[in-house]
Amino acid sequence: MPAITYELVKQDPVTGARAGIIHTPHGSFPTPIFMPVGTQASVKAVSPDELRDLGAGIILSNTYHLFLRPGPELIREAGGLHKFMNWDRAILTDSGGFQVFSLGDLRKITEEGVTFRSHIDGSKKFLSPEVATKVQMDLGSDILMAFDECAPYPADYEYVQKSMERTTRWAQRCKDTLTREDQGLFGIVQGGMYKDLRTQSAKALIEMDFPGYAVGGLSVGEPKELMYELLEHTVALLPQNKPRYLMGVGTPDCLVEGVLHGIDMFDCVFPTRVARNGMAMTWNGRLIMKNAEYTRDFHTLEDGCGCYACRNHYTRAYIRHLVRAGEIFGLRLLSLHNLYFLQDFMRCLRQSIMEGRFTKFRIDFLANYQMNAKK
Amino acid sequence: MPAITYELVKQDPVTGARAGIIHTPHGSFPTPIFMPVGTQASVKAVSPDELRDLGAGIILSNTYHLFLRPGPELIREAGGLHKFMNWDRAILTDSGGFQVFSLGDLRKITEEGVTFRSHIDGSKKFLSPEVATKVQMDLGSDILMAFDECAPYPADYEYVQKSMERTTRWAQRCKDTLTREDQGLFGIVQGGMYKDLRTQSAKALIEMDFPGYAVGGLSVGEPKELMYELLEHTVALLPQNKPRYLMGVGTPDCLVEGVLHGIDMFDCVFPTRVARNGMAMTWNGRLIMKNAEYTRDFHTLEDGCGCYACRNHYTRAYIRHLVRAGEIFGLRLLSLHNLYFLQDFMRCLRQSIMEGRFTKFRIDFLANYQMNAKK
Repeated sequence: MPAITYELVKQDPVTGARAGIIHTPHGSFPTPIFMPVGTQASVKAVSPDELRDLGAGIILSNTYHLFLRPGPELIREAGGLHKFMNWDRAILTDSGGFQVFSLGDLRKITEEGVTFRSHIDGSKKFLSPEVATKVQMDLGSDILMAFDECAPYPADYEYVQKSMERTTRWAQRCKDTLTREDQGLFGIVQGGMYKDLRTQSAKALIEMDFPGYAVGGLSVGEPKELMYELLEHTVALLPQNKPRYLMGVGTPDCLVEGVLHGIDMFDCVFPTRVARNGMAMTWNGRLIMKNAEYTRDFHTLEDGCGCYACRNHYTRAYIRHLVRAGEIFGLRLLSLHNLYFLQDFMRCLRQSIMEGRFTKFRIDFLANYQMNAKK
Repeated sequence: MPAITYELVKQDPVTGARAGIIHTPHGSFPTPIFMPVGTQASVKAVSPDELRDLGAGIILSNTYHLFLRPGPELIREAGGLHKFMNWDRAILTDSGGFQVFSLGDLRKITEEGVTFRSHIDGSKKFLSPEVATKVQMDLGSDILMAFDECAPYPADYEYVQKSMERTTRWAQRCKDTLTREDQGLFGIVQGGMYKDLRTQSAKALIEMDFPGYAVGGLSVGEPKELMYELLEHTVALLPQNKPRYLMGVGTPDCLVEGVLHGIDMFDCVFPTRVARNGMAMTWNGRLIMKNAEYTRDFHTLEDGCGCYACRNHYTRAYIRHLVRAGEIFGLRLLSLHNLYFLQDFMRCLRQSIMEGRFTKFRIDFLANYQMNAKK
């Protein structure tokens, strides 16, 4: 029995949208799902208890950051990342590839791997398919990601082709390195904005038979229409019986469109990052809490919301005060609200698939979303 | 029935230490007690739920800060400070006197009150006994403090005398202003380091018959021995049937000595401020969490501690990682631990009084404390 398995529960009859369950050594969770990001072994400002309370079944953590600090040896000694951070549900770790390639002039790529300078102390570091996989084995995450290059946008055909081919070779090396049977390694389809390269990438990875596949290299600055086009093309190539993960996407419109095309998993720092900037996500658009209109607004962030902040009747006026006064508790309340909102949003998406009304849900939501965006 | 009453439960037969209960419109709490400080209507990084969980029965909030932002009118409209910040237990508010006098050249004192510049936007503001009391009536705190001057240290006799006499006149004006029967106003004994001035201050305030008395103007830079001498002198003048509050004191050694001399209430930003600087308070002294010695220390902050961090097995190694990585959750865990430590410390002090072994407790604690301080 592989560590990670996907169970299809219901397929939307009209679109690619699907409801499922992913089983991991640290529990099962319904899909489609949004994964809160705990970059440095902590979802910023939020406790594991609070994550459980708001319904998160899996979180993401970053290999790059944990590799540099506190280091994989320490986390292994602590009993793995779950125990280190006190989170007993599933964890997905990325490979660090995205971060080291983002370092620009500070890194050097060879076939073997990437040499780079730590952003913390400037020391010389090296990540490769083997190292990234071993680090993730030390972390003990349920789902590991292959070490890949996320090609920039725009990039010419030749660059993207070479990069994708190297990523494919690296995926095999990651697979050859992984020996723990309680972990599942996902391959990442690359190929930039070129459909034929996406096809080559997907085919090669499927050949290697990973327990799940991510679509990487999207949401990197390209127009949304182009992203959706590539997404549709790519997902159509992937097997039905494996989870599909769209990396780094977390705004409601992109989540809906990702689900439309058959994506099961998403992650993004968006909900917690904007919370720390004083923004609340709601079904009726975003609230900038510093705005004067909330000064005497004694309603909760969202009527009927079940998040910690709303169900305990914290008002917009109070949260505005906390944000303006720079109080940490304000960021906590907004982080909890935004993370709950996305969990709730995904539950509603799933429910609409289960009840055969996904298309109506999507059209209604997007109409409302675009109207609010214009306000 | 006055809003605030004191019930003496047990008097230590040898020292001035006493165990009691203070009754307020928002519940009763055992004394001696330490009040966490929620300067801007939030105990930094901590939720009201968490404060309840760690056993806090009363918190302090600052009139100066709330007067400037968000303003007392808004808090009154919200239904008062309890409702605004979602805290249903007791609240004590200071008068703002301490903060405006600390502004130095930025403030001008007359018999009428103090004109000063807001530290937020530089606008001109005015606080007086009447304004400070009305602001606290808008806030709806259970215990209000009289508007006073906390004389600096050192200060000459003539300055302190004039300041104390004005503080006495101001106390009467505060009393004359308060009309809400669900609030109790405490007088503040001043007089600097001069015993005869302390005596005059205390006698005049007792004449006015406040439901409680604070000892102000101590812990302002004077040697600790001098502080304890003045404290002993002052408390001896105060009535047995009223609460006594030593303002701005929160290190364990000062708490023990305050209790020794018959103090019932304390407040200080110390536990939360040092938490944000990465320090844990324990029965065996302070832990500087950034220190390398905790890198692989998989023990909790304190063995057997019942705080959120310790009872959920967050390790020193994890907290050190969070502090070094600048993660808010690290400050949360340390704030919760330190606040719990002081609540627990006061419970143990009270228990020792109840069981007639306060003196032994005090001597043992101080010996251990001084030994740890030398480490």
